[in-house]
Amino acid sequence: MATIDPDRVLADLRELARFGAYETGVHRPTFSPDDVAARHWFVGKLEEAGLEGVIDGIGSVFGLSRGDGPKVLTGSHLESQNHAGWLDGALGMVYGLEAARAIGRGVDVAGFCDEEGHFGSFIGSRSFTGLLEEEEIDGLRNRYDGRPLRDALAAAGLAGRPRMRVEPGRYRGFVEAHIEQGDTLESEALGIGVVSAIVAIWQYRIVAEGEQNHAGTTSMARRRDAGLAITRLLGEIDRRFPEFAGPRTVWTCGRVTFEPGAPSIIPGRAEALFQFRDTDPAVLDRLDGELRRLVEEANRGHCPVTLDMIGQSRPAKMNDRLCGLVAEAAEAHAPGGWTRMPSGAGHDAQYLARVMPAAMLFVPSIGGISHHWTENTSDEDIVLGARVYCDAIERILDEDAGEP
Amino acid sequence: MATIDPDRVLADLRELARFGAYETGVHRPTFSPDDVAARHWFVGKLEEAGLEGVIDGIGSVFGLSRGDGPKVLTGSHLESQNHAGWLDGALGMVYGLEAARAIGRGVDVAGFCDEEGHFGSFIGSRSFTGLLEEEEIDGLRNRYDGRPLRDALAAAGLAGRPRMRVEPGRYRGFVEAHIEQGDTLESEALGIGVVSAIVAIWQYRIVAEGEQNHAGTTSMARRRDAGLAITRLLGEIDRRFPEFAGPRTVWTCGRVTFEPGAPSIIPGRAEALFQFRDTDPAVLDRLDGELRRLVEEANRGHCPVTLDMIGQSRPAKMNDRLCGLVAEAAEAHAPGGWTRMPSGAGHDAQYLARVMPAAMLFVPSIGGISHHWTENTSDEDIVLGARVYCDAIERILDEDAGEP
Repeated sequence: MATIDPDRVLADLRELARFGAYETGVHRPTFSPDDVAARHWFVGKLEEAGLEGVIDGIGSVFGLSRGDGPKVLTGSHLESQNHAGWLDGALGMVYGLEAARAIGRGVDVAGFCDEEGHFGSFIGSRSFTGLLEEEEIDGLRNRYDGRPLRDALAAAGLAGRPRMRVEPGRYRGFVEAHIEQGDTLESEALGIGVVSAIVAIWQYRIVAEGEQNHAGTTSMARRRDAGLAITRLLGEIDRRFPEFAGPRTVWTCGRVTFEPGAPSIIPGRAEALFQFRDTDPAVLDRLDGELRRLVEEANRGHCPVTLDMIGQSRPAKMNDRLCGLVAEAAEAHAPGGWTRMPSGAGHDAQYLARVMPAAMLFVPSIGGISHHWTENTSDEDIVLGARVYCDAIERILDEDAGEP
Repeated sequence: MATIDPDRVLADLRELARFGAYETGVHRPTFSPDDVAARHWFVGKLEEAGLEGVIDGIGSVFGLSRGDGPKVLTGSHLESQNHAGWLDGALGMVYGLEAARAIGRGVDVAGFCDEEGHFGSFIGSRSFTGLLEEEEIDGLRNRYDGRPLRDALAAAGLAGRPRMRVEPGRYRGFVEAHIEQGDTLESEALGIGVVSAIVAIWQYRIVAEGEQNHAGTTSMARRRDAGLAITRLLGEIDRRFPEFAGPRTVWTCGRVTFEPGAPSIIPGRAEALFQFRDTDPAVLDRLDGELRRLVEEANRGHCPVTLDMIGQSRPAKMNDRLCGLVAEAAEAHAPGGWTRMPSGAGHDAQYLARVMPAAMLFVPSIGGISHHWTENTSDEDIVLGARVYCDAIERILDEDAGEP
């Protein structure tokens, strides 16, 4: 059985965290100078490990193993959210590197570009799995400063490079490790989460149209207050959704806007961004139906309310056989100290799962903190995660090839 | 009895509307070039009418009658809201001018600067009534472009001019005419509103503090969603306030902000601007008490909620004797075609009422539209209003001087 080097794993993670270091975390947005430097540094580490290093035409980093025999694809992403944590993405990258080093055969490593969505939605893993057209790339811009993705690729010296595409039949599967980003593991004092599925996210824009008017001279009876219409609808969602939700469903209104937004003007238009997430298509359909019913009910009030679905991803079920092997490895290194759980966040594995068997494992996030520079995981949990991860990959490589 | 000249009233209103003409309304913000030009034009009209014209050190315009005898102060304001109506403010100014011309004695006219609040809150009428300190003027800036009021005064050639102060004992009272800005008169097919009182406005900032977190990985049970806390509180206000309100009370949430305002982040902080208006101090106290109770109740949830009162004006009761004379004039020119009503909007009369008897009369607003360039009043109603207004002022001047 391959043996990992805990000190090497921790040292590589710490060295990677020096690119864009910010407080105790990192600020390494996609194609920032720190991010580009980190990609080149990581390719160097992959080559040191004996892999063939590549940065492709969308900015993804690959380390390809040489020789014949079964292969497993590993990895995650290298860029960070703004002013965020040192392990989000980086953990899965260094685990992949360590697996390649410790096992010494059949481990490819991929760092899918821009999982964090500075320019687009999962452009690295979508490009690799054939779900990203050139026309979409032409239109993408940095969501903070508007810089075109094409310019960023050119500045990073990647313009015109071919984009890597998955080689059919090459892999037994894809395994991604990631921090949990929630507190399920910590609160149950567990070391490993074996991911059963990645949630689908269904997103909506809800708009109420009222009549902008003077907040002093317009009687309550005569008002058509778009802000109040949205407030009432969000209140109904809050009251009704628990009845239709599954045990792990989450729903969120992250933004509300009243127009014109002045203290003495009755809002003439109000907008809310609303989303829910679940792994079960039946639950998603039920929630969508209830939302549509509540909007219809709201439409019987004074302000017309419209509902636009602006995003609808699919739940991505992880592969049972691979999950079983990850679970075996977890039980071997942490008997009774692991659980199966869904992922409430999106990951590149949801796109890889469309073209090969995929599995994910989580390590605990201290305090459940994510997307903040205080995000952290104990060294002990990082090392346990690396052991389970390498063991699982070795089990996949060593398994008699069966149906995935 | 003095007789007004209807054509002259309409012609003056139309000429004033040429300063900053915008669509069928005007865009004449305080101390814009069009506004300054309008002030100079209006002083010229006051002087043509035999009054002593003055623009004072805060930008207010005055026409002072010469000679002895009882005096009434008239007027309103000259500037407009942005891209707003041609009659808001202007109507009361031209009525005052016409009263001075038609009656020929004892009518002073005042155009109080910046009633519309481009720089501050009622700075013209507060200056005239002794409620505006130099230090406050030093700090005021244009709310749209940040230009200091001092700079605007200097650019208009008014820096260093004395500010006019009310001369104690000079006036029997103040009479302001204004468009209603609501649809009470129109919907009851009435021509004149005799204002009983101007509402008080109590304004609040409500802030909920939660915990910003990932909208996918944070379970519903563990969330501290500040946006949801504010939504629930606004819902409770919506449900409870009708029970505590008076028949004319209005309440409004004009702005809600969630932070950071991203679709996939649970809001860590949410803020609402809330206000209510009434003329009855007992109703205001009751609503304030209920609001505080609801906030306290909200505080038993997961997110602390704080309530800051950011504005608290007083209701301004109009003078009974003056209102009686305005009502007599209304009945003379429009038998049965008038009503007593409160003003839901603030007016300079609320500050003048602190230093002398004050009265207001409203003319109908077509469709109740206000603060929009489509604001309008029929010529017939404008002329009727001018007749009632001049008659009322003559009645005040001719009355045996009694206790106000």
